[in-house]
Amino acid sequence: MSNLELIKELSLTSPGKIVMLVIDGLGGLPNPATGKTELETARIPNLDNLAAGGICGLADPVAPGITPGSAPGHLALFGYDPIACNIGRGILEAIGIGLELQSGDVAARGNFCTVDSSGLVTDRRAGRIATEKCAELCKLLDGMSIDGVQISVRPVREHRFVVVFRGENLQTELTESDPQQTGLAPKQITAIHAIANGTANIINRFISQAKKILSNYHPANMILLRGFAKKPQFQTMQEIYKLKPVAIAVYPMYRGLAKLVGMAIAEAGTTLEDEFAALAQNYPKYDFFFLHVKWTDSAGEDGDFDRKVKVLEQVDAALPGLLALAPDVIVVAGDHSTPAVLKGHGWQPVPVLIHGRYCRPDGVKKFSEMAFISGGLGRLASTQIMPLAMANALKLAKFGA
Amino acid sequence: MSNLELIKELSLTSPGKIVMLVIDGLGGLPNPATGKTELETARIPNLDNLAAGGICGLADPVAPGITPGSAPGHLALFGYDPIACNIGRGILEAIGIGLELQSGDVAARGNFCTVDSSGLVTDRRAGRIATEKCAELCKLLDGMSIDGVQISVRPVREHRFVVVFRGENLQTELTESDPQQTGLAPKQITAIHAIANGTANIINRFISQAKKILSNYHPANMILLRGFAKKPQFQTMQEIYKLKPVAIAVYPMYRGLAKLVGMAIAEAGTTLEDEFAALAQNYPKYDFFFLHVKWTDSAGEDGDFDRKVKVLEQVDAALPGLLALAPDVIVVAGDHSTPAVLKGHGWQPVPVLIHGRYCRPDGVKKFSEMAFISGGLGRLASTQIMPLAMANALKLAKFGA
Repeated sequence: MSNLELIKELSLTSPGKIVMLVIDGLGGLPNPATGKTELETARIPNLDNLAAGGICGLADPVAPGITPGSAPGHLALFGYDPIACNIGRGILEAIGIGLELQSGDVAARGNFCTVDSSGLVTDRRAGRIATEKCAELCKLLDGMSIDGVQISVRPVREHRFVVVFRGENLQTELTESDPQQTGLAPKQITAIHAIANGTANIINRFISQAKKILSNYHPANMILLRGFAKKPQFQTMQEIYKLKPVAIAVYPMYRGLAKLVGMAIAEAGTTLEDEFAALAQNYPKYDFFFLHVKWTDSAGEDGDFDRKVKVLEQVDAALPGLLALAPDVIVVAGDHSTPAVLKGHGWQPVPVLIHGRYCRPDGVKKFSEMAFISGGLGRLASTQIMPLAMANALKLAKFGA
Repeated sequence: MSNLELIKELSLTSPGKIVMLVIDGLGGLPNPATGKTELETARIPNLDNLAAGGICGLADPVAPGITPGSAPGHLALFGYDPIACNIGRGILEAIGIGLELQSGDVAARGNFCTVDSSGLVTDRRAGRIATEKCAELCKLLDGMSIDGVQISVRPVREHRFVVVFRGENLQTELTESDPQQTGLAPKQITAIHAIANGTANIINRFISQAKKILSNYHPANMILLRGFAKKPQFQTMQEIYKLKPVAIAVYPMYRGLAKLVGMAIAEAGTTLEDEFAALAQNYPKYDFFFLHVKWTDSAGEDGDFDRKVKVLEQVDAALPGLLALAPDVIVVAGDHSTPAVLKGHGWQPVPVLIHGRYCRPDGVKKFSEMAFISGGLGRLASTQIMPLAMANALKLAKFGA
């Protein structure tokens, strides 16, 4: 029996409410100029107080040394095995731009690229055309129908787009068309299993038509497709935890991930203040709240240490609004670390805090990576956070007599 | 290979002796009035000394967030995977009252209940009749024989009893008779697999006869049966660890669990002092001693913080008797936490201490939950305690060359 199956057997409905505040890219590394991390630099008295009153630790989203993407990072926070529940790239890209997917749809990541007169790829990214140009070209390709399969094409950013094929009996056992280097022609899509022959044929015909349509749009005169995937079927958080969960997230990717695990989606507005207001407004209607703060991660990805510090201080300033609701259990965590000095996601474990009346105190007084090393949660897997939150909200029955 | 299979391959006989002192429900939570846990409140100089001389940590019996019952809590301490080795409820109830079970026996939990003149359940617990009344009614039902199956009925407490069916080819693939709500008739027992048809028939005939016998004993005029189970077949501790293990426990449940893993059962008397005397008396005859102290858990379950503190102090006062035997390895642990503020078992990790000449020192000076966060054992699974105790007693060979 997997851990999640055990939790499913033991979970029960209780009045307790859980707020999980996910500060994206929460953990950091020291600024070489000061020797202090983003958290150690920020003035965050409310988070410090919460740490002093709760139980703290450091969580590995996937495993020590593994740098997680946003999807595995969040799935682990929701209690799902992030390796077993890996989501196909095409689907992630579609979710990221807020596309609604149905269960038989096949999604793929697309690149506009440049081919020469012999059809050989000279630039796999079509000179990184502007996002506006990408949107314009996607409109040319969008809305085709081939053998009853409807094809949607939507822009992502620069040369990147998403294609969704919707129809009967579409399969994903397909090779990719990207030759992965210049000087070669785009590859034919072929079926890895015979069951996908029909799908390969339709996709190749789509690519041929796209080539014709784009012939006068140099440098974006061809497309490359990869990452064919269907929407995964996960057990929902309602089924596993018997919760009524809702997501409050400004960015489509996180709303999409939340939807995959069964969460309702609240109107979250566009700012941190909007999100905390949405939390208060939705508080009576649900018992699990996933509140996602994106801007810490964006600052970390940009390598902007000071901006990440500022966002942390903004989150801290908004915290009293959350505390005023007096949730039975508060979880503060991150999906992964995004140290500004790395300018990207990192493998470093992520600070996690659980606050509730049945948390056993530890000696931690500061909300920081170093202080949390000595926390009472110790070093844990991110997948263990949900069972702990459930237990602290008195939502798990005893195992065995 | 499971961890236990590895240990079995490596275990060897040596003169070293291991005493495992299990303080039931050991871990606690702060008293809101003082901010101190039961362990932090108790005067326990001998345990503090042992902690200062040993290596300490915090153990999860099943997994973080999971509140263990006594059976999984103890099986984990004995090194058995508590999820794989889950024990059926009927068997646990029988063990709890000290019933001797044979391998083909089927045991079930029973309730006396009240039915109206149409046979519909009006009270699933028969008004919680007194334990004495329960014992009297059990005698009326005890000793039947149906198609050669011998049926024993023994009181547990209030309306609860145990039935054991003993005969050829009895099976447990059965539905339960408890309708789980009032206003419904007790359900017929049916076989989930055809193999259990005969068993279902016998049990239904037993229930019919019980109904006739009890007809004039309102409110206890009917019975409900559930949790049909057979005694599990575990590898013994002799087989796995090559130990000669003995249990010293006042309460039948813990003797029963010890017997399931092959331990001999010592005459333990009725008090803490009796138990420590039994340890000394049996010391020459065995090399592994499971010494079980129940009263910490009972006090915690009653929500009696001060009584739990007092029992801890009594254990501490008895400790010199154990130390005088100079065991090669002393383990002090709990099967689970029972914080008085929770009035029941908790999910919080359990303090564990290992003392022996080859333990690497840590900086811990106090026997407390918070002090043990910084212990050298760190955060571990309770199933890892036995391998550590074995290693410290020089009872495990090297793995690989």
